[in-house]
Amino acid sequence: MALKKVAVLVAGSWGTALARVLADNGHRVQLWTRNPAQADEINRLRRNEKFLPGAEIPDGIAATTDLSAAVRDAAAVLFVSPSSAMRDVARQAAAFIPRDALVVHATKGFETDSLKRMSTVLSEELGRPEQQIVVLSGPSHAEEVIRRNPTTVVVAAKEIACAEAAQDLFMNDSYFRVYTNPDIVGVETAGAIKNIIALGAGLSDGLGYGDNAKAALITRGLAEIARLGEAMGAHALTFAGLAGVGDLIVTCTSRHSRNWRAGSMLAQGLPLDEVLTRMGMVVEGVRTTKSAYVLARRHGVEMPITDQLYAVLFEERPPGQAVEALMGRVKTHEIEEVAGEARRGRTPG
Amino acid sequence: MALKKVAVLVAGSWGTALARVLADNGHRVQLWTRNPAQADEINRLRRNEKFLPGAEIPDGIAATTDLSAAVRDAAAVLFVSPSSAMRDVARQAAAFIPRDALVVHATKGFETDSLKRMSTVLSEELGRPEQQIVVLSGPSHAEEVIRRNPTTVVVAAKEIACAEAAQDLFMNDSYFRVYTNPDIVGVETAGAIKNIIALGAGLSDGLGYGDNAKAALITRGLAEIARLGEAMGAHALTFAGLAGVGDLIVTCTSRHSRNWRAGSMLAQGLPLDEVLTRMGMVVEGVRTTKSAYVLARRHGVEMPITDQLYAVLFEERPPGQAVEALMGRVKTHEIEEVAGEARRGRTPG
Repeated sequence: MALKKVAVLVAGSWGTALARVLADNGHRVQLWTRNPAQADEINRLRRNEKFLPGAEIPDGIAATTDLSAAVRDAAAVLFVSPSSAMRDVARQAAAFIPRDALVVHATKGFETDSLKRMSTVLSEELGRPEQQIVVLSGPSHAEEVIRRNPTTVVVAAKEIACAEAAQDLFMNDSYFRVYTNPDIVGVETAGAIKNIIALGAGLSDGLGYGDNAKAALITRGLAEIARLGEAMGAHALTFAGLAGVGDLIVTCTSRHSRNWRAGSMLAQGLPLDEVLTRMGMVVEGVRTTKSAYVLARRHGVEMPITDQLYAVLFEERPPGQAVEALMGRVKTHEIEEVAGEARRGRTPG
Repeated sequence: MALKKVAVLVAGSWGTALARVLADNGHRVQLWTRNPAQADEINRLRRNEKFLPGAEIPDGIAATTDLSAAVRDAAAVLFVSPSSAMRDVARQAAAFIPRDALVVHATKGFETDSLKRMSTVLSEELGRPEQQIVVLSGPSHAEEVIRRNPTTVVVAAKEIACAEAAQDLFMNDSYFRVYTNPDIVGVETAGAIKNIIALGAGLSDGLGYGDNAKAALITRGLAEIARLGEAMGAHALTFAGLAGVGDLIVTCTSRHSRNWRAGSMLAQGLPLDEVLTRMGMVVEGVRTTKSAYVLARRHGVEMPITDQLYAVLFEERPPGQAVEALMGRVKTHEIEEVAGEARRGRTPG
């Protein structure tokens, strides 16, 4: 494999962890941040303490605050900005990105007002076909990837050659395994919405409901994500794979998850503002709840977990009331929803 | 709802927890055990310390060592014996069970040599149609049910009226939610085989592989379970529901799971005999691994996780080598298996 210059925008937890994968694979990585102090910390101390406390940053990564220098001559550009900043970062970088550079993103969320997927936003701002944009997703805590724990992800693009190019870039034999999948709509939708279910799982755990209740919540959450995904044009089967059930499991059952942590703080009665202040990092599930709430209505899809989370986050519904509404929602004689949908001849999640 | 006499055979963790649900619903419960000391402990001390340490047994439950007295005049009989004892217990009880009694079981496993499902075994020994036998399954740790934590399960029978009768018996408004599902083959297969994946998850955790690796293992495990289930006549969609992904999540991510615990002890290098001695309880996943290994060959289904577990349990393969074989198994350019199967027009798990 030819070694390449790769730009990673920006130096958050996941961007830094993926930069390590690229550096471990021998590529020259330019890690961009707006924050000079952070760039200095990475370059001199080989640390990124705010986002990955205790982790060492390998020498193959050079941080920079110069966006044009980061992306100029890059063979590939990896966007890992928060969803709210994606359009802005892409717009600034667009003019400097080589025409033949591979574009990959690893951001989970929709654009807030337009509700567009990240690959659509990148396509618009970079002026290149959406079919060539690649998403990287799957069950992958940054805190484990930076320590080289075995991790398995999916790269998806409509043009499968682009997904395969991304696979070549990221895959290695020692700890980072990469599959390709042509269903970018499914992979992006699953990755975004699972953060809502993780918030719900944190709420459930924070209220002391236990593992049985949480497993029921995750199972229903998966069905809910798949229903919306299919309405948006995704393939149902993507939701049974790594970017669907895999990512949902890791996000909902691990204390590394910031969405889970935010949910468990909400359960303790902290108001949303206070939770977000204490987190000190973007909690994608919060804005994704708003996006999915609107998307569900636009596509005529029932999303009871999303609806309850929306009420907790934005309408001051007490968390206990929301979780009880979810547990008590179904009629006594209802056939389990998955089997019910099978009977009606639909493909469920 | 009319209150009924219900017999529960036997007084292990899950039998005792389900007996509490029935007692909480107002039924008179006869809980059978062969062990006079245990019956005495339950009746006098309201405790079942070996199986549910610290839990209080409610007054509506009476333990007995007299099998005929337990089942005589019962409106329903719930079998919760280990899979290895099911045929024997059913044979002993058969003559005393009223002809119109509802028969339900909540045992996860296949019969060891015949590889029959539990509902088949019960049908044969009780001389009643298999269509009328009900299975109860789903994400439900006994340790949480006995504490009345919110729990959601599935009851399945080919004759849906039987499943609905079981639903009426077990469902309550406060903590125990019951759905019906017509696919008993899927529910029984999913419930049995997930114990193998739980063993594998315990191995992975015991080896320190982390949450990313475990989520990948569970995701592949789900696909593997569904493949075998479908070959045996199950509906693929059952595996996306509570008895499939729901139970898999709770079993693989919770330290209550004895299969998980057994796997993590194996990872520490303890031999199987020693692990089983230390557990002091049946570990269904061990014998299920043997059953699934044979079933996979009989039905021509690939089950890589089962194969590796079989090698660890019965062929002395070092656990680290087995997990590495699983992580490294797939070719670089393979399409993610779920999407790959979709492309080939099959229904995957």
